[in-house]
Amino acid sequence: MSAIPLDFIRATAQLGEDITRPYPNSTKVFVQGSRADLRVPMREIAQHATPAGFGAEANPPIPVYDCSGPYTDPAARIDLLAGLPPLRAAWIAERGDSVQLDGPSSDYGRARAADPRLASLRFEHIRAPRRARPGANVSQMHYARRGIVTPEMEFIAIRESLRLQQLREDPRYARVLRQHRGHSFGAAIPEQITPEFVRDEVARGRAIIPANINHPELEPMIIGRNFLVKINGNLGNSAVTSSIAEEVEKMVWGIRWGADTIMDLSTGKNIHETREWIIRNAPVPIGTVPIYQALEKVNGKAEDLTWEIFRDTLIEQAEQGVDYFTIHAGVLLRYVPLTADRVTGIVSRGGSIMAKWCLAHHRENFLYTRFDEICEIMKAYDVSFSLGDGLRPGSLADANDAAQFGELETLGELTQKAWAHDVQVMIEGPGHVPMQLIKENMDKELADCFEAPFYTLGPLTTDIAPGYDHITSAIGAAQIGWYGTAMLCYVTPKEHLGLPNKQDVREGIIAYKIAAHAADLAKGHPGAQLRDNALSKARFEFRWEDQFNLGLDPERAREFHDETLPKESAKVAHFCSMCGPHFCSMKITQDVRDYAAQQGVEAEAALARGMEEKAEEFVRSGAEIYRKA
Amino acid sequence: MSAIPLDFIRATAQLGEDITRPYPNSTKVFVQGSRADLRVPMREIAQHATPAGFGAEANPPIPVYDCSGPYTDPAARIDLLAGLPPLRAAWIAERGDSVQLDGPSSDYGRARAADPRLASLRFEHIRAPRRARPGANVSQMHYARRGIVTPEMEFIAIRESLRLQQLREDPRYARVLRQHRGHSFGAAIPEQITPEFVRDEVARGRAIIPANINHPELEPMIIGRNFLVKINGNLGNSAVTSSIAEEVEKMVWGIRWGADTIMDLSTGKNIHETREWIIRNAPVPIGTVPIYQALEKVNGKAEDLTWEIFRDTLIEQAEQGVDYFTIHAGVLLRYVPLTADRVTGIVSRGGSIMAKWCLAHHRENFLYTRFDEICEIMKAYDVSFSLGDGLRPGSLADANDAAQFGELETLGELTQKAWAHDVQVMIEGPGHVPMQLIKENMDKELADCFEAPFYTLGPLTTDIAPGYDHITSAIGAAQIGWYGTAMLCYVTPKEHLGLPNKQDVREGIIAYKIAAHAADLAKGHPGAQLRDNALSKARFEFRWEDQFNLGLDPERAREFHDETLPKESAKVAHFCSMCGPHFCSMKITQDVRDYAAQQGVEAEAALARGMEEKAEEFVRSGAEIYRKA
Repeated sequence: MSAIPLDFIRATAQLGEDITRPYPNSTKVFVQGSRADLRVPMREIAQHATPAGFGAEANPPIPVYDCSGPYTDPAARIDLLAGLPPLRAAWIAERGDSVQLDGPSSDYGRARAADPRLASLRFEHIRAPRRARPGANVSQMHYARRGIVTPEMEFIAIRESLRLQQLREDPRYARVLRQHRGHSFGAAIPEQITPEFVRDEVARGRAIIPANINHPELEPMIIGRNFLVKINGNLGNSAVTSSIAEEVEKMVWGIRWGADTIMDLSTGKNIHETREWIIRNAPVPIGTVPIYQALEKVNGKAEDLTWEIFRDTLIEQAEQGVDYFTIHAGVLLRYVPLTADRVTGIVSRGGSIMAKWCLAHHRENFLYTRFDEICEIMKAYDVSFSLGDGLRPGSLADANDAAQFGELETLGELTQKAWAHDVQVMIEGPGHVPMQLIKENMDKELADCFEAPFYTLGPLTTDIAPGYDHITSAIGAAQIGWYGTAMLCYVTPKEHLGLPNKQDVREGIIAYKIAAHAADLAKGHPGAQLRDNALSKARFEFRWEDQFNLGLDPERAREFHDETLPKESAKVAHFCSMCGPHFCSMKITQDVRDYAAQQGVEAEAALARGMEEKAEEFVRSGAEIYRKA
Repeated sequence: MSAIPLDFIRATAQLGEDITRPYPNSTKVFVQGSRADLRVPMREIAQHATPAGFGAEANPPIPVYDCSGPYTDPAARIDLLAGLPPLRAAWIAERGDSVQLDGPSSDYGRARAADPRLASLRFEHIRAPRRARPGANVSQMHYARRGIVTPEMEFIAIRESLRLQQLREDPRYARVLRQHRGHSFGAAIPEQITPEFVRDEVARGRAIIPANINHPELEPMIIGRNFLVKINGNLGNSAVTSSIAEEVEKMVWGIRWGADTIMDLSTGKNIHETREWIIRNAPVPIGTVPIYQALEKVNGKAEDLTWEIFRDTLIEQAEQGVDYFTIHAGVLLRYVPLTADRVTGIVSRGGSIMAKWCLAHHRENFLYTRFDEICEIMKAYDVSFSLGDGLRPGSLADANDAAQFGELETLGELTQKAWAHDVQVMIEGPGHVPMQLIKENMDKELADCFEAPFYTLGPLTTDIAPGYDHITSAIGAAQIGWYGTAMLCYVTPKEHLGLPNKQDVREGIIAYKIAAHAADLAKGHPGAQLRDNALSKARFEFRWEDQFNLGLDPERAREFHDETLPKESAKVAHFCSMCGPHFCSMKITQDVRDYAAQQGVEAEAALARGMEEKAEEFVRSGAEIYRKA
């Protein structure tokens, strides 16, 4: 990395066409909010008409939630060197409760800014950071509790609604809007998501809007049990591999496939500069684990960590615009020995760093003892807490044990402390948990942490499939999402084995989009079944292109189809390679449908005229009609 | 196919090394039963010792269930042209209730045997088929109900037990045998699986042993809620693609990765000959859907199907050795119009064939009206029923509707009819079902079908991910397996898009091994957590090789690891590419453990001597010990 000059970054700061091309047959649309600069992006997937043989009806466009930002908008000009436009800048400035500083206020941020050797790595258009005025609190929770509906909240209400109210009034959607009743385990999902509902959920701490005032490029989103289930994708270099350009590209790649937030877990060199590039180009919230960087600052020696170094790191990152911090403040000294008899001890990096520090000093975790001071920093920038589960189980054997649940109780205590500061909080969860123990995690989190949003890693439901942990964990993620988890942290096929490459990221994200959507469906989220119904209808009607385009990964669907039947003509054929052209169950079903309709209409007409014998004849002749079909 | 001469088949009837090489660091072991010819294969995975820094203890071999048959046994001589040795032949003959016929008794079987044009395709060592003596019943259920424990039942008891009783008495396994309490939703899984328990479960219909007397090559296995959850892999050519050699290879490939049974769903040419090659080389039960072949015999015209043609097909296939038949006898005329308003109508091929026939003739399904006659055939060869769900939902929208549940009730009625003949039955289930509706499927199946084993396809929990339906369905499969489904029919990534290739089969099978194992764990199946614990312990101790070898797919795990850290030395390194050599949470945890042990021992010793102050000192000095580590 340090060998890469800015000229090289300039030359390579181009995203491949595979990363920015618009989704097939889709249009980026914007729903206008109450003010001119409040335009909420979503994606609409156009559909073809039903073929003549199946009724020839028009099929309306299907709106879907879109995390990909301007990158998939052909009208947007992308310049990674300039960053994204600061869409929230006016909203933040108008509130008048923050000021623009002269420059970074952290020691580290100032040192990096002043270091001429870093010029070649540095993002060129760094804005001076904003901070709350003395005594002010710029958190969305603070506004919410004072009854203020921010533009962010309105944006989110429109975004989550996906035009459902309009669609409900449009007869073209009547059939595909049918949906099974959900079972939400006590969630309180409204039929319509209004700005006021968003405000209320944030005010009571049941949802968070991660939106640092220094990340104005962000398209606001919400994490809460009564909203669509979200997913997070991780990226980050380590001492072994990766570079800035790769990490920015991975971020854009991740949101293209559907990551709602991105965590930058870098532990290698120049992570300050890498982070700046990522945030300036990120339309989604960025989370970090500040203790990783703090540890780098003390050359990897956990026992040398101090509150002062950590505090400076928080300010450094908050002023860059990180939207949520994982903070392992629940790893208390007394819980550490509870892990000694575990099969896999402490597997959280943050957890083990703090455990090491606690033991080395035989003192309580400074993240816990300094928690109020941390809150003061969080509310000056509106950084949300992601209270880390440093003692999460790293194997099924260690699930739901005293160490894990002891920490969870402490996270509940800290949640209340943060809320006393009007600071937003979500709670991190496991890990590796067999299915029968998953629900206890959710129930305990809701009870102990007062319904603060739960943010879980998987959980993995078995330990025996390295290379396939996106699947072992998608099984658990779907379940815990159904039970009430608000955001699912993805796991890639490389989990436990190595760093994910681009294809691994794609596999992990799609697996988690599936889990999250399966959870939305099971909870009965309004409108969640629309896309399923539309895709199934397309499938039934042999609209292959629509089937691909409505899917989570149109490219792969097309590619798989083309492996067996590559010809373009096959995509309009009324069969697939499973059964061949000679026999097709879908075709037969259409015949059944024609028959039933014909039979029903004629038999009913006859019955209406009191001609029962005639009606029976129609039932018989139905067989003839069918034969002709 | 018809262009391939036997010489070519001879020349190509070689399995690649990738298909037959032994699993890494594993040994095929045989547990001796009560008679000399009853030797139950399983696989033992050897482990390395714990590295010196972590305690240097020996780690015992882990036994795992093995579906792969002789193919992974270096001592076995594989000859696809000769088929596998008929391991059950003596057991079957000894019972004295069946006779060997002069040749096939089906018209079709005789015609094929006599057709000289097929010589080049034909398996060369076809045995004349066996059939029950007049009036006899050779089903395992019939024996079970008369109190007879067959060698098959003893084989299964040993196979399912995986030497657990021995392991429990061996102190080396004490730690890795620890397991969470399961939640089995009313299953009755015993602590120890005995031959008598197997017999009792088969007698009451709660489990089946698919084991046609004409498939003596079979290694007996059981499908039932109180046994390990099984998975099925499908293969089959269609009019569009595939050949005999490919299908045999896919079968061996499928069982290598863990398919417990294989369904041959061929619909193309020469399926009689293909089936013979597959069965003669299959150590696992083979299932078919006879109506597919019957349809070929009437040139694809469903309305031309007759009971006589179907009956001849059943006998043809039963005499080849097919172990279970999917029979769509529950698709009643009155249910067909219930599908007319569905989003995806009838998606089961068998279901739509029968629906078409019913409508064309406006008569009741002949599979239903001739059910007793079918039972007579089943019991003459011991073919098990897999009562097909011809009206299963093909989309979430259609889940749990009147058509589906109407058919399920009829399957219950047929179950009782079959049981009156002592014929074994399992029940097929959906399909596409959102998570909140899955449990109703299981509950209804248990109630309506009197606990006959449930055998489900997925279910897929969302329709929006073509290209990833192994994942959408593994989520549902894990859940329904947990609730009580006995066998899970796999879904590959190609579902809805095309025919799976070898890699798709591998992906599908591993996804389903994960789902089945996650279900075993959640139900609390005795010993199920052993492999998880062993793998996690290996992971914690940086025994990379053992972590790969204990996994479901050692090759992929190794390959993924090597992508980032390819050097051999990295496999003994005490770090991975996630965190790099500088910092590793696993290492820190070991330090915590050393510390806790040291602290605990010394503090306890001091306390025992009444020296409380001294004890506290040890607690403090623990920090020093830790620093030195």
